[in-house]
Amino acid sequence: MSRLRALIRDVPDFPEAGVLFRDITPLLGDAWGLRAAVDALAAPFAESGVDLVAGIEARGFLLGPAVATRLGVGFVPMRKEGRLPRETVREEYQLEYGRAVIEVHEDALRAGDGVLVLDDVLATGGTARAACRLVEALGGRIAGLSFLVELQPLGGRKGLEAYRIESAVQFGEEG
Amino acid sequence: MSRLRALIRDVPDFPEAGVLFRDITPLLGDAWGLRAAVDALAAPFAESGVDLVAGIEARGFLLGPAVATRLGVGFVPMRKEGRLPRETVREEYQLEYGRAVIEVHEDALRAGDGVLVLDDVLATGGTARAACRLVEALGGRIAGLSFLVELQPLGGRKGLEAYRIESAVQFGEEG
Repeated sequence: MSRLRALIRDVPDFPEAGVLFRDITPLLGDAWGLRAAVDALAAPFAESGVDLVAGIEARGFLLGPAVATRLGVGFVPMRKEGRLPRETVREEYQLEYGRAVIEVHEDALRAGDGVLVLDDVLATGGTARAACRLVEALGGRIAGLSFLVELQPLGGRKGLEAYRIESAVQFGEEG
Repeated sequence: MSRLRALIRDVPDFPEAGVLFRDITPLLGDAWGLRAAVDALAAPFAESGVDLVAGIEARGFLLGPAVATRLGVGFVPMRKEGRLPRETVREEYQLEYGRAVIEVHEDALRAGDGVLVLDDVLATGGTARAACRLVEALGGRIAGLSFLVELQPLGGRKGLEAYRIESAVQFGEEG
């Protein structure tokens, strides 16, 4: 997917010194790029028994519903703490500095539903693992995980070996 | 769109006492509802010279890219302060309590581009007016505004009279 990769812009020292940020906004802003990204995220799971797509706030919201529409299923938002109005289950997870919480509505899925977990970037994988725990806490089954970008040196697949993981664009050590 | 409206759940006293929150998560989670919402947001602007869809963080991210894909154009995220990695223009606007800021990348659009501004809910309209000012600050033209839900008693169209506004589901005084 080198044409998709060419639409991702490198921004050095964001959000802090020493971090190379992979900016997907040029890809989103390009009609071909946006459509190709949706296709690339959805296609590997077209025959995988996906009943729902779950996306993580905020950037997982960007492509999740479009992928759900492509697969002909609904979308479940996983939100930051305190933003969902009804009863939720919550998962705490480790960030580089401090901890974060994501929540999902208790009635967001039914036991046995196959859920595709979607986010823009697979980095260390902490958020993705928390998302999978939320799905399983509600009795759902992980149909797979789909990422637009995988930052391979950060080892995000660790702890996710039980699941099928697909990424459309990979960045390795060479950048 | 009474079938869409039936998929929006009322949650009293959220986020605070006395507020009736219109929860769109049941609609998003329903395969028919999600697709119908995307269609309803896109269809009125299919022949309106839309070059880009702009959506406002976080809930405008949910339907914006899907609507952009439906219209065959790209998507521009308008984000909360400090989250976009490159040079931005910013707009401050009034909330019920305090002020907020949204930003967009300086190079997110070209002068003359027709931009469809999209959000889930039109309430008081403060965020939508700030979004329109951002588009115009970059030389863009407002092709229109499209909302899933309009809370008519809050008068959000005030100050937006120059633009075409469409909403898929309206809530009036009767609730």
